[in-house]
Amino acid sequence: MRVFVKGYYSTKFGELWDKSLSDLIEEAIFGVLKSANLEVKDISAIFVGNMLSGMLDENLLLSAKINEILGNPGLPIFRFEAACASGGTAFYNAVQFLKAEKGKNVLVLGLEKMTDFCTEDVTTALASALSGEEQVAGLTFPGAYALMARYYLEKYGYSEENLAYVSVKNHFFGSLNPKAHFRKKITLEDVLNSAYIAEPLKVLDCSPISDGASALILSTEKSLVEVASCEVATDTISLVRRKNLDEMLSVKRSGERAFSFAGVEAKDVDVAEVHDCFSIAEILVIESLGFWKKGEGGERMKEFDLEDPFKSKPVVNTSGGLKAAGHPVGATGIKQIGEIFLQLSGRAEKRQVEGAKLGLAQNTAGSGGLSVVTILKR
Amino acid sequence: MRVFVKGYYSTKFGELWDKSLSDLIEEAIFGVLKSANLEVKDISAIFVGNMLSGMLDENLLLSAKINEILGNPGLPIFRFEAACASGGTAFYNAVQFLKAEKGKNVLVLGLEKMTDFCTEDVTTALASALSGEEQVAGLTFPGAYALMARYYLEKYGYSEENLAYVSVKNHFFGSLNPKAHFRKKITLEDVLNSAYIAEPLKVLDCSPISDGASALILSTEKSLVEVASCEVATDTISLVRRKNLDEMLSVKRSGERAFSFAGVEAKDVDVAEVHDCFSIAEILVIESLGFWKKGEGGERMKEFDLEDPFKSKPVVNTSGGLKAAGHPVGATGIKQIGEIFLQLSGRAEKRQVEGAKLGLAQNTAGSGGLSVVTILKR
Repeated sequence: MRVFVKGYYSTKFGELWDKSLSDLIEEAIFGVLKSANLEVKDISAIFVGNMLSGMLDENLLLSAKINEILGNPGLPIFRFEAACASGGTAFYNAVQFLKAEKGKNVLVLGLEKMTDFCTEDVTTALASALSGEEQVAGLTFPGAYALMARYYLEKYGYSEENLAYVSVKNHFFGSLNPKAHFRKKITLEDVLNSAYIAEPLKVLDCSPISDGASALILSTEKSLVEVASCEVATDTISLVRRKNLDEMLSVKRSGERAFSFAGVEAKDVDVAEVHDCFSIAEILVIESLGFWKKGEGGERMKEFDLEDPFKSKPVVNTSGGLKAAGHPVGATGIKQIGEIFLQLSGRAEKRQVEGAKLGLAQNTAGSGGLSVVTILKR
Repeated sequence: MRVFVKGYYSTKFGELWDKSLSDLIEEAIFGVLKSANLEVKDISAIFVGNMLSGMLDENLLLSAKINEILGNPGLPIFRFEAACASGGTAFYNAVQFLKAEKGKNVLVLGLEKMTDFCTEDVTTALASALSGEEQVAGLTFPGAYALMARYYLEKYGYSEENLAYVSVKNHFFGSLNPKAHFRKKITLEDVLNSAYIAEPLKVLDCSPISDGASALILSTEKSLVEVASCEVATDTISLVRRKNLDEMLSVKRSGERAFSFAGVEAKDVDVAEVHDCFSIAEILVIESLGFWKKGEGGERMKEFDLEDPFKSKPVVNTSGGLKAAGHPVGATGIKQIGEIFLQLSGRAEKRQVEGAKLGLAQNTAGSGGLSVVTILKR
């Protein structure tokens, strides 16, 4: 059974203080139904990615709450939590539902409401996706990725400048995306002069805390963009149990499986969205997927040229990535696939990669404990 | 693609203060692998049901934590949250994974660690699965089911005694189950003399707070017990938006779909596990599934006879139900299906329903916002 992407809608990402989680759910669901020209009655099930509504807002059983928002059609609705890859795992299971011939159209929804809560509470809640020992020892996610960044920079002889190009690039693309949290271009100097969060990572190496919801319609009915593969893999959650801090094994494993299942290679990919929760993450993911060789990323990132921003293959994070588009964690994995869908259907407007035929979205949980790789083709 | 149950293992349910969540995960996973004569390498994916590890223990991304416990095989591992039906929704998606031909064997794990936390915190965390308005107004689950109980008793002219038989029956069966939280038989007087929690429900009308983990192996390889159907449905989460407080619409919808898909009727079922989080819940579920007519349950429940405990058709909650076997919420949906598996494979020991060929497990989320019905046959 072949599975196609039939529609995509995303709310704006950002500090959406005037919108509740229910408002975001409603906007995303009815937005995506409209985009696919469907009604609630045409949908067989809903798959929802959300990480933190329980911890931050004492809000669980979203399945039944969403059913109520829809006027009680009684649909099967499932909620997935895999930290920042909650959206990706929801998507994966939605694909299997269709392949198992349980229905014709399904809706996949990713969402997170984060900015109503104080930053300290959000940081603590996010740290629940670290290993228990590292969490209790006081590690946070900026700290975890700072360890990976230091290891990488020292191993290959790079400086913080090599990381900074990631943020410059992603803010450039964010400036072209009307739904992005940040639409301001930044310079190398801006990044290098920003304050340290966890050395060597600075404010402008880090993705923001955002609100937002994104939704996709998947269908067994043939349309332009097909899901060529979607694969999930795990790694140790503890950094201390990894052989090399610069190899994201879950990304490598999920990427290899996804390329193999789709029958394509890294070099064939025209456009990619990868999980740049921190600047170092984008480099490590790109290398682990095989787009660049190990250790090459720090240098290759500097090739990004504001005068010719679409010249690389693949073009990476045209949505602005997590860095500039924002990172409402449960929504991120869906927004990534949505951006690839827009690219392959020629609807990415100012961000359009001309002639894009093959695209990849990669969604990481935590410090790499789990990864989802989805390949779309037209 | 046909799907079979190949193995089942459950830890003891109860106050397991000397065991961590990781200990329970390890015991259940290696226990069920042994029961199916398989190793980790034979498994294609793991589906995990858990409700509260985030809210109670700041513990998310269980997928990667489980992968690490297994020595980092890198498997796809998914976590589901649907309140007390988290286990059931994990099972549902595991079935679709196999039907989509993604692998040969999968492991489904349900787990919850609750007794390390104070009762007030657990009650508050559980209330996150009520509607937001009812939660903010101070409703808790005993309160929600008390409303349903009062409605039912008054509508049909029953008394609290009619409810009490549920607990007497389930404690009788719990006394036969070595894994049950409570193995003590109780009398009608015990129930009626116990203290009110939320009138008309008393202590002995309520399932306990428990720790435990249960696991199943599903396989596309033919074996004795087959998954005839598994269906999920939702209802409004708010009690105030229900037409009749004595009709559990999500149970009715999921039951009708499951009977229809399996091509069987309620009268064919030999043995059933239903979600008796409170005594009233068992009666409402049995009626909503169509085993008994609406309003009949209060009277029919009194027919239970300690001298001939297996005479009804179906025999209900031979595990002891949530009431006596215990209710580690994420584990409950898996334990229910596991009990039916034991019954159909003739391995339920002192609880064996002779000649059982068709069994049903029903798992409710919250006050009925979602329900999963699974039918197994031999």
